[in-house]
Amino acid sequence: MFVTFEGIDGSGKSTQAELLRESLVREGRDVVAVREPGGTPLGEAIRRLLLEGAGPTSAWAEASLFAAARAELVERVIRPALELGTDVVCDRYVDSSLAYQGAARGLGVERVLELSLAATGGLLPDSTFLLLVDPIEADRRLGARRDRIEREGQDFRARVDRGYRELVGRFPDRLVALDGARPPGTIAEEIRERVRERS
Amino acid sequence: MFVTFEGIDGSGKSTQAELLRESLVREGRDVVAVREPGGTPLGEAIRRLLLEGAGPTSAWAEASLFAAARAELVERVIRPALELGTDVVCDRYVDSSLAYQGAARGLGVERVLELSLAATGGLLPDSTFLLLVDPIEADRRLGARRDRIEREGQDFRARVDRGYRELVGRFPDRLVALDGARPPGTIAEEIRERVRERS
Repeated sequence: MFVTFEGIDGSGKSTQAELLRESLVREGRDVVAVREPGGTPLGEAIRRLLLEGAGPTSAWAEASLFAAARAELVERVIRPALELGTDVVCDRYVDSSLAYQGAARGLGVERVLELSLAATGGLLPDSTFLLLVDPIEADRRLGARRDRIEREGQDFRARVDRGYRELVGRFPDRLVALDGARPPGTIAEEIRERVRERS
Repeated sequence: MFVTFEGIDGSGKSTQAELLRESLVREGRDVVAVREPGGTPLGEAIRRLLLEGAGPTSAWAEASLFAAARAELVERVIRPALELGTDVVCDRYVDSSLAYQGAARGLGVERVLELSLAATGGLLPDSTFLLLVDPIEADRRLGARRDRIEREGQDFRARVDRGYRELVGRFPDRLVALDGARPPGTIAEEIRERVRERS
């Protein structure tokens, strides 16, 4: 089972990814939990290029770097784990590229999807949980310590949010949109229930 | 005028790129000379990821990293220079990705071309000089100091060579194949003459 978590920065997706991982482990399942970009030596080096310092000027450079980190993560970690029957929980995946670079940076969802599918050999998650929160509330949650993309303004965050909401209609079977304003425990219970239904 | 140089490692293309740059400068033209991957702070960081140490495991990660470096180089250096009327001479560009990742690594020339065209906003050179040399002779020229890709074996070098030769038929107007076994000065004269005809 391959499950990914998506949402704007400050949506609580990393918390939910961790809560799902703990819940699966408690039930005795083998779980690999990873984050994007990262999870491999190359991916962590790319993460530093993307999130620290000046970062790319070109939006296509940004999209290609995310694709490179993803290709490496799929080949070295995700695909081998799935082949062993291990569950994989990933904090961000293809939909982040579609919402951030495809929609918010204006590269086009279709073209960024093509790039991501090439990079991953067409591997999409079984389920993707999209945590929807008001962009202003998400901004408040983020606080002062931010990486390069988290420092983008409120306009950008709102475009990413709209990008994500449009994806729900495009991938209705895979993408599950959840109200992220509720208490984390309540959201985690709903996710656990939905994962159970689907597996 | 945007001119690129291509060929397997050890084909003499970097020498020819430099000789053309010098010749254009002597004639009083403004010239920017760059190499791939590199030419920007991000591109040089990507170059280290690609050519030093272990490098990517995934061939799509490799292709995406080259695309990222190229996108940044086009946006920050090549396009601004061309808009000012400056000539640009580039040591490796799109065709390297097509021959190395598309053909030799087996990702497919068409898919890698799509990625490169997206990353560059469709910018192709006015002329590309492809230096053809026997892969065994190129290997001899390279000597002992080699980067990660130059350390690939003779089989790989032969696949890149075949990949390049197939590109000549695909881009007959842009790609000029030259016999790279001749003395550098003779090749440089032919290139200068061909550039003159085309400008």
